[in-house]
Amino acid sequence: MRFFSDNAATVHPRVMEALVEANRQDTAYDGDAWSKRLDEALGDLFGAPVRALWVPTGTAANCLALAALCPPFGGVLCHRDAHVQNDEGGAPEFYTHGAKLILCDGEGAKLTPDTLSATADAIANDVHRVQPRAVTITNATEYGLSYTADQTAAIGDWARARGLGFHVDGARFANAAAFTGADPADLTWRAGADTLTLGLVKTGGMSAECLVFFRTDLADDTLRRRKRAGLLLSKGRFLAAQVLAMVEGDLWRELGARANAGAALLAAAAGDRLIHPVEANELFLRATPNEAAGLRAQGFDFYDWAADEVRLVVSWDQDEAAVRPLADALAAL
Amino acid sequence: MRFFSDNAATVHPRVMEALVEANRQDTAYDGDAWSKRLDEALGDLFGAPVRALWVPTGTAANCLALAALCPPFGGVLCHRDAHVQNDEGGAPEFYTHGAKLILCDGEGAKLTPDTLSATADAIANDVHRVQPRAVTITNATEYGLSYTADQTAAIGDWARARGLGFHVDGARFANAAAFTGADPADLTWRAGADTLTLGLVKTGGMSAECLVFFRTDLADDTLRRRKRAGLLLSKGRFLAAQVLAMVEGDLWRELGARANAGAALLAAAAGDRLIHPVEANELFLRATPNEAAGLRAQGFDFYDWAADEVRLVVSWDQDEAAVRPLADALAAL
Amino acid sequence: MRFFSDNAATVHPRVMEALVEANRQDTAYDGDAWSKRLDEALGDLFGAPVRALWVPTGTAANCLALAALCPPFGGVLCHRDAHVQNDEGGAPEFYTHGAKLILCDGEGAKLTPDTLSATADAIANDVHRVQPRAVTITNATEYGLSYTADQTAAIGDWARARGLGFHVDGARFANAAAFTGADPADLTWRAGADTLTLGLVKTGGMSAECLVFFRTDLADDTLRRRKRAGLLLSKGRFLAAQVLAMVEGDLWRELGARANAGAALLAAAAGDRLIHPVEANELFLRATPNEAAGLRAQGFDFYDWAADEVRLVVSWDQDEAAVRPLADALAAL
Amino acid sequence: MRFFSDNAATVHPRVMEALVEANRQDTAYDGDAWSKRLDEALGDLFGAPVRALWVPTGTAANCLALAALCPPFGGVLCHRDAHVQNDEGGAPEFYTHGAKLILCDGEGAKLTPDTLSATADAIANDVHRVQPRAVTITNATEYGLSYTADQTAAIGDWARARGLGFHVDGARFANAAAFTGADPADLTWRAGADTLTLGLVKTGGMSAECLVFFRTDLADDTLRRRKRAGLLLSKGRFLAAQVLAMVEGDLWRELGARANAGAALLAAAAGDRLIHPVEANELFLRATPNEAAGLRAQGFDFYDWAADEVRLVVSWDQDEAAVRPLADALAAL
Repeated sequence: MRFFSDNAATVHPRVMEALVEANRQDTAYDGDAWSKRLDEALGDLFGAPVRALWVPTGTAANCLALAALCPPFGGVLCHRDAHVQNDEGGAPEFYTHGAKLILCDGEGAKLTPDTLSATADAIANDVHRVQPRAVTITNATEYGLSYTADQTAAIGDWARARGLGFHVDGARFANAAAFTGADPADLTWRAGADTLTLGLVKTGGMSAECLVFFRTDLADDTLRRRKRAGLLLSKGRFLAAQVLAMVEGDLWRELGARANAGAALLAAAAGDRLIHPVEANELFLRATPNEAAGLRAQGFDFYDWAADEVRLVVSWDQDEAAVRPLADALAAL
Repeated sequence: MRFFSDNAATVHPRVMEALVEANRQDTAYDGDAWSKRLDEALGDLFGAPVRALWVPTGTAANCLALAALCPPFGGVLCHRDAHVQNDEGGAPEFYTHGAKLILCDGEGAKLTPDTLSATADAIANDVHRVQPRAVTITNATEYGLSYTADQTAAIGDWARARGLGFHVDGARFANAAAFTGADPADLTWRAGADTLTLGLVKTGGMSAECLVFFRTDLADDTLRRRKRAGLLLSKGRFLAAQVLAMVEGDLWRELGARANAGAALLAAAAGDRLIHPVEANELFLRATPNEAAGLRAQGFDFYDWAADEVRLVVSWDQDEAAVRPLADALAAL
Repeated sequence: MRFFSDNAATVHPRVMEALVEANRQDTAYDGDAWSKRLDEALGDLFGAPVRALWVPTGTAANCLALAALCPPFGGVLCHRDAHVQNDEGGAPEFYTHGAKLILCDGEGAKLTPDTLSATADAIANDVHRVQPRAVTITNATEYGLSYTADQTAAIGDWARARGLGFHVDGARFANAAAFTGADPADLTWRAGADTLTLGLVKTGGMSAECLVFFRTDLADDTLRRRKRAGLLLSKGRFLAAQVLAMVEGDLWRELGARANAGAALLAAAAGDRLIHPVEANELFLRATPNEAAGLRAQGFDFYDWAADEVRLVVSWDQDEAAVRPLADALAAL
Repeated sequence: MRFFSDNAATVHPRVMEALVEANRQDTAYDGDAWSKRLDEALGDLFGAPVRALWVPTGTAANCLALAALCPPFGGVLCHRDAHVQNDEGGAPEFYTHGAKLILCDGEGAKLTPDTLSATADAIANDVHRVQPRAVTITNATEYGLSYTADQTAAIGDWARARGLGFHVDGARFANAAAFTGADPADLTWRAGADTLTLGLVKTGGMSAECLVFFRTDLADDTLRRRKRAGLLLSKGRFLAAQVLAMVEGDLWRELGARANAGAALLAAAAGDRLIHPVEANELFLRATPNEAAGLRAQGFDFYDWAADEVRLVVSWDQDEAAVRPLADALAAL
């Protein structure tokens, strides 16, 4: 029973159907009808003019956004536990041509204006120090917390006041949107975000994430960067069709909510073992190696995260029946 | 009737089935059973130990190979009409961190030891001039010519004698292999090639190309470069499964032969309009704007290539019935 | 007798004195009185507001300028014999993070709007092709031709009409200014140039070139790029003092004229051996290997340039007496 | 009275004389007699075969070394207060094409095998995490501590055991060598170091540092990187001559000792205000803003370093008479 990552989840049937449908057409690169509909579809979702690009990975989406917002000689403020810092194999440095990730603190991998200031204010404004040019947050965070609209806007205000770009890594944006119930616009452009990685793969897609530009002026150059990074698939319609299948009809949010529900069930069972509040589809629990081994012996598959700490992730394709056995096992620990 | 690019072709049913099959499993990144079988499957195909990586585009495959073979301060010898030079939006420079493409001549975009020497011998060996470190050829070439095993080996010998790496861009390797009838080993490692982009998308795949390392020592670093380039899809099993669907059972070569057959049919009809011999699935024809307009009026879709020159490409999914009308139209010009 | 390169010339006494003077002060990096005077001194020279930065090499100056004018995914139009293409070891690609040099033709390494258009018009405006973002010319050219003010302005107009940046590599700007007699403003910003490498080392300096920004908005970021490239010398006052010694009092132009005079003397002696008009301090002559050997046997040191072609360069420190013997030898060939 | 930085010190007369001497010769780039003597002169100093390159800044020397030791996708372990991390404007990321600085702890900016292990052992060996490929230490450290030969060897052993490169940033190597009295070989190659930035500018030079390769196989590629970075001065003999003036006759070490002596005098006067032991030419003192203002009112020029903390630096050109007034003032605080 898979609880180690939503990266491993299956693909939603509507996405599979979209691939079949896209195979009835023949156009190359991003000249197809699906790709051309993306701006409108995402514009509808966010209630604002946007430019939207499909890319095959969240890493690529994040890094294209950072490259658009930060010059090679600049820095990007992020949490020290951020995915871009720890889990993308140096991709931000590659795409930005060596911009520096500048690390900030914050509970549960969540930044605040205060923790951002603590880091940024210590950087002398001279040529010897790399200067921040952008901020990136992850919503939901790497520890499964969700930024509210207000919390996001506070960061947006802080960034704007300093003239910094603002990116939202939304690998699990569906979970954050579902948990907070916020309007996606309030979690992004109304809060000052310039760009969003709208994660779709963890939530039921196969191989397409969506990079959304609220600062639409940045998109044209990014089309060039996307090609230059070897990300412009020749049969791009199969990515565009995935995005539309997830976005049109709001499937993405429905599936995010579904995964959250499973996580909430587990959270209730885990009680005071929880290290962080459960505000998305991930749980971080205190568990001894013996306890972890016991759970594994019952067939539950998950990652150790640190000493006496495990991570559990619920995916869109796990309904209550799929989650209940683990909830019971946690309660019985 | 689509003759503008094999990039726009449909996806073969067996590939679609492989996606459905891969959706029954849940593993992340490249830890799945399909990804783990690639080395063996490609090793069987080439009759040698290889390392094989899926990537979503041929551009990415080519550029990862060049980055493995050439340091940032080196140069890559290629034809002046090569895809890496003209059609990859600067991706080689991005992946290699600024290595220089050094341009050579040759009929039909085909390099020879002589044309390589003409360029390379003029480069003084000092720090002011960028020195060649690798050679890349495209087989079949950008003008639809195929390198024979002997021609490839001549270049391999030339490269080895100078201590240069040797990459084969095989976006249409299936067509070249089918046309020459050569053993794939004779077109690659036995001819001295270190790396191959085995193109599968133009030939019937959806979103997976295969980067093959005959110099297996280069693969581990490339796994890191692949991640760093944002190319490590979290549900990588869907790419691996595509590669296996194309490679196991030799579907790739069968489909390459099928496209070639259509091109041969057109070539016979085109007669002395042909600018280059037709040795793969592409034709370059002399045609006045009026003639081109006439063909388009009959419903044939294709690109102008230069003044009084058009390009026709036959795809795997176009059988004789699909090609015959264009052949007749060409004959009637 | 040295005629192989002005790079090897001695340093002018006034520059040496400036170093002694600068050693009486103690300030770090570019906080010193000399560095602070550069903007004004160069502004006076060019009759316009400028930002002026010292750098230790012309390569660095050129490449900082190109990085300011061209994004990593763009291209720089230059002559196929340009120094940036052939003699800077890939530095433009390093500083621009992989921008592409796009090669144009032109007699004597001199570009014109026509030769620029011939190249640029052939580049389709899509993401597959790298798009030009800047033009760079070398004045005097690599073959010793000088652009007039009108010729420069024609290129500036062409660049502006296409929205491209315009850099002038003036490694031998002193020679061009002296030869044409033009106002330096007319060879640069009035002709549309955004940036200039004002070469001072070949003309009598030791280790300081001057990068001049007519587009002053580009300078602040370049201060960061200069530091990031390891070019911000901690005792920068010694570079600033060199620049001032050359610029204040117009020593740079006087020394350029002096070198030109020697070259003119040689040109008169060389007669129809000349391959290019002599419009600066370099000569390119037809000479058989035997003739070259004969000259060398008389003690003249110079480079072979191609088959039956030699290059002679006169430096600022070679007066008529120093040049006369070679003129006589040429006349006697 | 300057105590803010040894970067601002004057140039030693013997260096000035060397420049005059070098002006009697005419050769270009690094083809001169001085440049050619560097390998031998530095080989003599270190008692081993070395390759030695002049470069204009310590930043450039450090970053060329790191680029030689670490691929773009790798990481460099350094102290979180290291100069490469905080004061080089992102130059390491530029030269290495985006390698990641991986931060470690340690008293007084000094690394130990334990603090290195604490960081390195926490990095999972997968493609998602950037893997360390090199270690760099600063000797003397950013807080004026000197590594002994044994301490250096302990790090060298640690690095070798893990297959990592090992660089020593010796911006103040003269001070460390003078303080410890160690054989330079024992502080470098005998301790496992692959490369050394031998700082000469802070110690009395003008514009030349020396990058020393104990792993001589890395030097040839670095000659290309040096050119590519715009660091190959055309009149390089003036840098080579500076290096020789400092190295031959051991002037570098004598001047390092002289600066140390001044710092020791101040340290004795500062007593328990010292935050770190004084093992080179820098002091870090507790001082209230009032106390700092009082010192400045007496004409002493220095930097605040943190709240209630100031930094004092003694330079080679400050003898006891120059330092005594500040010592007295400190004692009188």
